[in-house]
Amino acid sequence: MNQSVIRFVLGKVLLIISVLLLVPFVTGMIYREREGLIYLAVAAVCFVLGFVTSKKKPERPTFYLKDGCIITALSWIMISVIGALPLVFTGEIPKFLDALFEVASGFTTTGASILNDVEALSHASLIWRSFTHWIGGMGVLVFLLAIVPLSGGTNINLMRAESPGPSVGKLVPKMRSTATILYMIYFSMTGIQAILLLFSGMDLFTALCMSFGTAGTGGFGILNSSVASYTALQQWIITIFMILFGVNFNFYYFVLNRNLKKGFAMEEVKAYFCIILAAILVIFLNIHGSFHSFEEAIRTIAFQVGSIITTTGYSTADFNTWPTLSKSVLVLLMFVGACAGSTGGGFKVSRLIIMFKTFLKEANSYIHPKSIKKIKLDGEPIEHEVIRSVNVYLITYLTIFVISVLLVSVEGKDLETSFTAVAATFNNIGPGLNKVGPCANYADMSNLSKVVMIIDMLAGRLELFPLIILFHPSIWKELIQQRRCRRRNDC
Amino acid sequence: MNQSVIRFVLGKVLLIISVLLLVPFVTGMIYREREGLIYLAVAAVCFVLGFVTSKKKPERPTFYLKDGCIITALSWIMISVIGALPLVFTGEIPKFLDALFEVASGFTTTGASILNDVEALSHASLIWRSFTHWIGGMGVLVFLLAIVPLSGGTNINLMRAESPGPSVGKLVPKMRSTATILYMIYFSMTGIQAILLLFSGMDLFTALCMSFGTAGTGGFGILNSSVASYTALQQWIITIFMILFGVNFNFYYFVLNRNLKKGFAMEEVKAYFCIILAAILVIFLNIHGSFHSFEEAIRTIAFQVGSIITTTGYSTADFNTWPTLSKSVLVLLMFVGACAGSTGGGFKVSRLIIMFKTFLKEANSYIHPKSIKKIKLDGEPIEHEVIRSVNVYLITYLTIFVISVLLVSVEGKDLETSFTAVAATFNNIGPGLNKVGPCANYADMSNLSKVVMIIDMLAGRLELFPLIILFHPSIWKELIQQRRCRRRNDC
Repeated sequence: MNQSVIRFVLGKVLLIISVLLLVPFVTGMIYREREGLIYLAVAAVCFVLGFVTSKKKPERPTFYLKDGCIITALSWIMISVIGALPLVFTGEIPKFLDALFEVASGFTTTGASILNDVEALSHASLIWRSFTHWIGGMGVLVFLLAIVPLSGGTNINLMRAESPGPSVGKLVPKMRSTATILYMIYFSMTGIQAILLLFSGMDLFTALCMSFGTAGTGGFGILNSSVASYTALQQWIITIFMILFGVNFNFYYFVLNRNLKKGFAMEEVKAYFCIILAAILVIFLNIHGSFHSFEEAIRTIAFQVGSIITTTGYSTADFNTWPTLSKSVLVLLMFVGACAGSTGGGFKVSRLIIMFKTFLKEANSYIHPKSIKKIKLDGEPIEHEVIRSVNVYLITYLTIFVISVLLVSVEGKDLETSFTAVAATFNNIGPGLNKVGPCANYADMSNLSKVVMIIDMLAGRLELFPLIILFHPSIWKELIQQRRCRRRNDC
Repeated sequence: MNQSVIRFVLGKVLLIISVLLLVPFVTGMIYREREGLIYLAVAAVCFVLGFVTSKKKPERPTFYLKDGCIITALSWIMISVIGALPLVFTGEIPKFLDALFEVASGFTTTGASILNDVEALSHASLIWRSFTHWIGGMGVLVFLLAIVPLSGGTNINLMRAESPGPSVGKLVPKMRSTATILYMIYFSMTGIQAILLLFSGMDLFTALCMSFGTAGTGGFGILNSSVASYTALQQWIITIFMILFGVNFNFYYFVLNRNLKKGFAMEEVKAYFCIILAAILVIFLNIHGSFHSFEEAIRTIAFQVGSIITTTGYSTADFNTWPTLSKSVLVLLMFVGACAGSTGGGFKVSRLIIMFKTFLKEANSYIHPKSIKKIKLDGEPIEHEVIRSVNVYLITYLTIFVISVLLVSVEGKDLETSFTAVAATFNNIGPGLNKVGPCANYADMSNLSKVVMIIDMLAGRLELFPLIILFHPSIWKELIQQRRCRRRNDC
């Protein structure tokens, strides 16, 4: 384990977070709220701590996947804890566990809230909640990679640990350029959405908050009614951008480079849109009778489908009251998730494609036992390693899911609530069904359940392994060993 | 496709089923019921049909896995349809779809019933329902292998298609001897249980029905209250035998051969008992307060746990009214299932073990990327093929499960009912929760749901692939091609 690199990167993350905390500070100043000063105070402390820890450059700049995982997991835990502090200090969420839940839910782009009355928050805290979505969507370490030159060339291990999807591709040979390009696309799209919302008659503050939440596929709203009270046009804009932010960002890179053919040939993107259309169609056939007009039906259904599959979690309707078939479709979409390489969570469409192709291959092997065919994605054969990792991912995913449901059901809420509460937090969606449905929140859950769901949100966002590695006994043994030999000075 | 072998084996299955139909006939004669004669009539027709079809020996005796799958799938569909006919003709279940559901539920050892009043059935039909469990438990084709000499040496493909578990081992080099040994163990254990039940004061008819249902891990009772009205001793006997029939039969073979060391070293058997004990403990801690005595608590909990994990489906308590944690544990056990090579259904403990070890291996590879370790079971390295097939099985299992839940939720019952109805039929358990709980039945489900669940029961019992192969387009293409070239006489 390369402890000096871990220390150095965590220090840099502290510096970044101190800068990001200035956003709620400035907002607070504009609205003349005393809460803004608390954000400034926390930012100052972070800056000092970060400056001290990252002053000394690491002895060896090389780090491996293991170190990348540890850095990622620790960074995310650290920013969640730090991000929760201002909410506790302002007294807006006095209980630390609740504040941690809220901010972890923000950074992991889950959008599950423990607040009964969102509208009571200060502007500073409202924009901070939404801003955590934006930071968490693309990832704080990808941001770090974009701005801090980390020498050594092994920093793909950082990106691999933080980015969603079965395999991480560099868009361009240099890691740093890849991170920069990703953040530029992300920034531009968020900007376009905010401008469109402004033109539709929304005020700047709301437009920014909603765009941050959409871009990160987060889902924190600033009204108790989520998005239901916005105009039809605004709902359409948000729907379209939710779906766009669920697309693999490689697609946009290809489009920007005028490589339209390669972009539109991406199987994952095609499958993603097919799933969305199919889900809208099934739900439309199931419940179209309960709407006043065709436009209202399509808008409402497309909004919830887009919101759930991209794991955003905004809502314009209480789908908890929809018939079982529609609810089943939505629960299913909770697990599907968005594309790999997007800001969305869930299992990811590309993993599903690989799983489906593995299944077809097996079915064929019963008929033609001797045929040897490689599974392909976008025309390229998929490495055996990737297929195996998808299978292992599925196994791990199910294991964590099952244990979480068991732990959450200890408090005795009904099965549907326990099941969908875990599904909604683990897949970084936000609202579940029944007692955690779109018109309810997580305030009533027990402390145990909240702790379990905080871990689930982080595990879901970091795609399981970085967080699991942190609990691996050999990591702890190594740590103790390194500490011992440093004391003896014989390493 | 070797059509002549398929025809020949299906003919033999018809002959076997005609003999088995004599059991309800004789029972009917003893109780002087006219329903018995209807069973005789159906038996006679089956005998004639079977005699004609299997008279001519197959041209080529060799068959491949593909043929084995087709034979298995067709046999099971055929015996379900034939077994349903007497119930329709006697007017006890007038609707054919309901009768097919009931008998498919019997043969697949599911035990899900559409009957509101079981006690209204004739003795002939009661014993037939329970007897289908016994036949289905070990498998009609394994029985065929035990008594009919199929030359060619490729008949392991039949057993592989019908027997549960990730890999089929021959106990002894000759397939026929393996099948005979399995049936001898099965027969003896059923006999011992029936004798014990007789000694405990049960009448012969009830003891036989209950033993058939336990041995096949089926779950059809002959009283509306399932097992709740039997004595504590009788409940204990049934509990112990349910759990024993969920053990991998290889274990009994080792024990019979005085190879105790090898038997007790079987990881699957150890894991199976650990899971049972853990589940009993968790539920006990959750609900022990609601019982009058420690014995009653342990007996009731052990009964439901044994019944669910072995996928039997008997009940002595309405676990639908238990708190959520206990219900979650039971739902989880529904998916775990019994050991491979037992008569129980579900995902199988050995598959879970392999999954868990794959996960551990992956977690280690993050720490030691270059280590190459083989996954072992019972000290033997597991073939890569087996691991892959377990993964594919999981994928296929989840896919069928999800599609089934969607189709069943079309009729609009609540999510818990739809979800557990599919879980209980697909895993061959019987009772689910809520509207299909242990004190309810499947009579109210829609026709679509019943068809879906009949397919699920068969797919669950035959472990997915044999049934899927039947729907594979290339099988149909081959059939049409063979028919064409036979017409032209140029094959």
